[in-house]
Amino acid sequence: MNTLEKKGPPVIIKRLEPSSWWIGMKVPEVQLLVYGVGISAYDVEIDYAGIRILNIHKVQNPNYLFVDLLISDKAREGNFSIRLKEGGRLVDSVYFNLLSREEDSANREGFNSGDAIYLIMPDRFSCGNPNKEVFASMQEQNNRRLEYGRHGGDLRGIWNHLDYIGGLGFTSIWLNPVMENNQPESSYHGYAITDFYQIDSRLGSNEEFKELTKECQRRGIKMIMDMVFNHCGNCHWWMDDLPMPDWINQWEEFTRSNYRLSTISDPYVSDHDKKLSVKGWFDTHMPDLNLENKFLLKYMIQNSIWWIEYVGLGGIRMDTFPYPDKNAMAIWAQRIINEYPNFNIVGEAWIGEASKLCYWQKDFPNRDGYNSYLPALMDFPMQSAIKHAFNEAEGWDQGMARLYNMLADDHLYPDACNMVVFADNHDEGRIFHFLGEDIRKLKMVLTYLATIRGIPQIYYGTELLMNGDGAKGHAKIRKDFPGGWENDKTNAFIKKGRTIEQNEVFAFISKLFNYRKRSNALKYGKTLHFIPENGVYVYFRYVEGDCLMVVFNNNAKGVQNVKTNRFKEILSQYSKGRNVITGRRINDLTMIKIKAKSSLVIELG
Amino acid sequence: MNTLEKKGPPVIIKRLEPSSWWIGMKVPEVQLLVYGVGISAYDVEIDYAGIRILNIHKVQNPNYLFVDLLISDKAREGNFSIRLKEGGRLVDSVYFNLLSREEDSANREGFNSGDAIYLIMPDRFSCGNPNKEVFASMQEQNNRRLEYGRHGGDLRGIWNHLDYIGGLGFTSIWLNPVMENNQPESSYHGYAITDFYQIDSRLGSNEEFKELTKECQRRGIKMIMDMVFNHCGNCHWWMDDLPMPDWINQWEEFTRSNYRLSTISDPYVSDHDKKLSVKGWFDTHMPDLNLENKFLLKYMIQNSIWWIEYVGLGGIRMDTFPYPDKNAMAIWAQRIINEYPNFNIVGEAWIGEASKLCYWQKDFPNRDGYNSYLPALMDFPMQSAIKHAFNEAEGWDQGMARLYNMLADDHLYPDACNMVVFADNHDEGRIFHFLGEDIRKLKMVLTYLATIRGIPQIYYGTELLMNGDGAKGHAKIRKDFPGGWENDKTNAFIKKGRTIEQNEVFAFISKLFNYRKRSNALKYGKTLHFIPENGVYVYFRYVEGDCLMVVFNNNAKGVQNVKTNRFKEILSQYSKGRNVITGRRINDLTMIKIKAKSSLVIELG
Repeated sequence: MNTLEKKGPPVIIKRLEPSSWWIGMKVPEVQLLVYGVGISAYDVEIDYAGIRILNIHKVQNPNYLFVDLLISDKAREGNFSIRLKEGGRLVDSVYFNLLSREEDSANREGFNSGDAIYLIMPDRFSCGNPNKEVFASMQEQNNRRLEYGRHGGDLRGIWNHLDYIGGLGFTSIWLNPVMENNQPESSYHGYAITDFYQIDSRLGSNEEFKELTKECQRRGIKMIMDMVFNHCGNCHWWMDDLPMPDWINQWEEFTRSNYRLSTISDPYVSDHDKKLSVKGWFDTHMPDLNLENKFLLKYMIQNSIWWIEYVGLGGIRMDTFPYPDKNAMAIWAQRIINEYPNFNIVGEAWIGEASKLCYWQKDFPNRDGYNSYLPALMDFPMQSAIKHAFNEAEGWDQGMARLYNMLADDHLYPDACNMVVFADNHDEGRIFHFLGEDIRKLKMVLTYLATIRGIPQIYYGTELLMNGDGAKGHAKIRKDFPGGWENDKTNAFIKKGRTIEQNEVFAFISKLFNYRKRSNALKYGKTLHFIPENGVYVYFRYVEGDCLMVVFNNNAKGVQNVKTNRFKEILSQYSKGRNVITGRRINDLTMIKIKAKSSLVIELG
Repeated sequence: MNTLEKKGPPVIIKRLEPSSWWIGMKVPEVQLLVYGVGISAYDVEIDYAGIRILNIHKVQNPNYLFVDLLISDKAREGNFSIRLKEGGRLVDSVYFNLLSREEDSANREGFNSGDAIYLIMPDRFSCGNPNKEVFASMQEQNNRRLEYGRHGGDLRGIWNHLDYIGGLGFTSIWLNPVMENNQPESSYHGYAITDFYQIDSRLGSNEEFKELTKECQRRGIKMIMDMVFNHCGNCHWWMDDLPMPDWINQWEEFTRSNYRLSTISDPYVSDHDKKLSVKGWFDTHMPDLNLENKFLLKYMIQNSIWWIEYVGLGGIRMDTFPYPDKNAMAIWAQRIINEYPNFNIVGEAWIGEASKLCYWQKDFPNRDGYNSYLPALMDFPMQSAIKHAFNEAEGWDQGMARLYNMLADDHLYPDACNMVVFADNHDEGRIFHFLGEDIRKLKMVLTYLATIRGIPQIYYGTELLMNGDGAKGHAKIRKDFPGGWENDKTNAFIKKGRTIEQNEVFAFISKLFNYRKRSNALKYGKTLHFIPENGVYVYFRYVEGDCLMVVFNNNAKGVQNVKTNRFKEILSQYSKGRNVITGRRINDLTMIKIKAKSSLVIELG
């Protein structure tokens, strides 16, 4: 969409971003970034009913103009020319597409606790266009022999396996960033964006991303787009000719962030430390964007809205939410939710303590007055607890008590049900690795994620017992999905391509998450939990007419006979149940037998 | 004061509590508990100008009456009779003392960040009345040979050493409970109260406590009284004949608390677990008081006010604040602060996580609407950090980073400067024990307590390098102060009675806390801290015209040369300083030399 549609050869205008917008947005304005050598010397004209130029901003770099348009609700969809003139003479022009919104676009529903998310690293999932081997404009070509190279997974590959993903019970897909990363190396992960308006051509086109999203929608799967505002790739086109010096945070020499996110909420923080956190660079090849710059902030806000409207997103995952200027991020989040009140955004605030993470959720009553307007958070404190709890012997605050204790911190969060709960992702070790490759523990973790409050997120390949220690390098935890490529020796997308153990876990996930799809108690229910005793943790999820009992036995050995008398405040209403995984009926609830290192999900009633 | 003053021998009335009250309180009412066999059958009359009986409550037990009096501001001080009548005939009567308040009593100042607290276990500090050996009405007599016996420390012993305490730089004394503990054994600690209106006779009399407090006041030392509302001793007089069954929390068989304080703020808690936390007993000999009972709550509120007015308190330390009914505790705290707006109460909420502790401070915006009205908290999360930080090698969240990180949680507390900061107390191991008896580390801890935000509290004997592992029994951490008894072999109250090491630490504390007394920056200043680097943690305390730099080198070996350039946002205003401990002048602040495992406090300017 942002490829330049122009009459004749380009004379002056090299970039127009965005190159389309919609009629009928709540904020009926758009600011165009127009780039071209010496462009600020020219006049800009538009002649289209319902379009008015509000402002033309010249900035330090004469190669940029920022043009504010007002779009009347009565404007008609169509193309119009943005004309560049010099003393009344037309010197260049470019088309802009004015579009109608899809019906009910503003009311689109974002992912929520009714959903379960499957996280995919697109380059490592499946290659659907094996014939497309050379990408002319890209610095890095596909090469599966390189651990940190591009392996050729693409959007078509994901499309091909939507049955697989949906079959597992997932209703949302989060893709690691799909925008262009035209970097010379290690560009496969997507976090070094070089064009915010363009899907990476190795993954597909903008149109393909839109079509994939529509196909997902048809299947009841929401597309969550990963966005990165903190930094871009150093090969981003604007890096050679920045609009203004403060477009990025510049340092005399390369200066890394201290990665201490506490600095942003700490009442005693020094300017020195805070500046390093927020303005220090993530990495040498990732220039730190400065969202205090009002033009850049508007650019990014529009970019998000553009993708939501263009492809029809069901959510945004915002990378490194606390690292850019926090006020800018709040303005962004507020604007998005203002345009789409039922939408959702989950922020990565990689903070392992609830005491500090709570600062970042919308409407937390921060003493400094800050409101992030960020509706959802990645639940890092829970992830940290999960990584330890199932490996530990029981103690006052260890083992199951760790989970119990962690969940009690929910008194802090304004919206605990909007926490995304996960055991691992593309940045850390695989949960199966942390669990010592113990399938029993993995099933406990999966049970927990599927049944605890919040929005579960599973990392692709968990169902295949993918292991990998993040400490040994990111490549270890971002392996290719077997069967994702034409000549792969095994095809784990089909049952016979999976080992017995893989099929066991695959079936477990499928059972659990497909059950969750139908369970109002799990999706929207309240939670009631009991202090773990003898290594057994029991909680209930319930909503009118629907109640589940979830039991974990974290003991290494032996069967536990759990007397249920202490649960009677909720259990007394029920005399029978059904094991959700096995389907077996339970006709006596007074005592529950549960094996060592296992979990039970019991539908009551 | 609550000994019954009556005409003639007691006929019916055995108890009157309180037996005195004051004219001119904000709430001009008092509810009298009147106890005597069959007392509810009689009429009650009072004939005194300005006193009116508002209500006479009969309860389940006919041996109790609760009489509500309204006290006019215009009433005159004096004694009046409470007359018990039967068909117009006087059957018994008792005096009540109506008192005038001390001038400015309502505006008394409680302990605050300008103070430093010395915690004393009175039975273990010093015996000032060695001749008083038999306590006729007490079940347990003094016996220093028993670890858990009463050793005979008393209020007179404390009086005798106020020079010592004041000389160390302390401006507040917190005594473990001094109310009567007439229990058969282990009554020395004071937490099993058997009479809420009576000082334990082995410690002294009510009058002596009042005089001690007045003497403290003259010396600029505030008296903090330890109060216990959660439980009483099983030998409390009312235990034989409770006013009503729900005066205490009764169980079919002895039922212990689960001690899980998270249950009280946990949004998912079960009634079962919460009930056990709040209504379970602390110990077999400590019946759990039920403050949901409105008569008991009023009794306790009045008891606190009575002690504040009677002895002239400078603060209350409330034991186990979260264990009784939380709403009752809030009503209590609100009432106290309403009567004494400048007073202070510190609650023991033994919770090691800021995420959960914050729930308990006044005005924390709890999502469940709860407001404890408790102004000050014991800073258990800090204590936990202190116990680890100085023993650890540096890591992302270990060593000095642990302190840095913990302090960043202050964004949660409505009033972080009203946290009582401490390294140990009568319940846990001695800090010197936790520090492996390393004097260098102890000095670092003392420096931290004296210079960080909040109100420092030191446990008696810390200055004498008292050690002791709480895990080996409470007696190990509640040893007698050497020299507190007439025939003690050594007398550590005087310099020559202390070892070289003890004198070193004694002098260190004395220097530090006496300096603190004069330092507005330490008492009321703001805090600015910097991310620890290379095991060195630096913070500043500052207020207009007064700035201190505090440096910790937590490395086990070697001198650190700390370049100060990164502190320039505050340090650039200063070129010189003075070492507060040694008095040595520092003429160059560009580089600070600091030895391994040591701290520096530098007065700037």
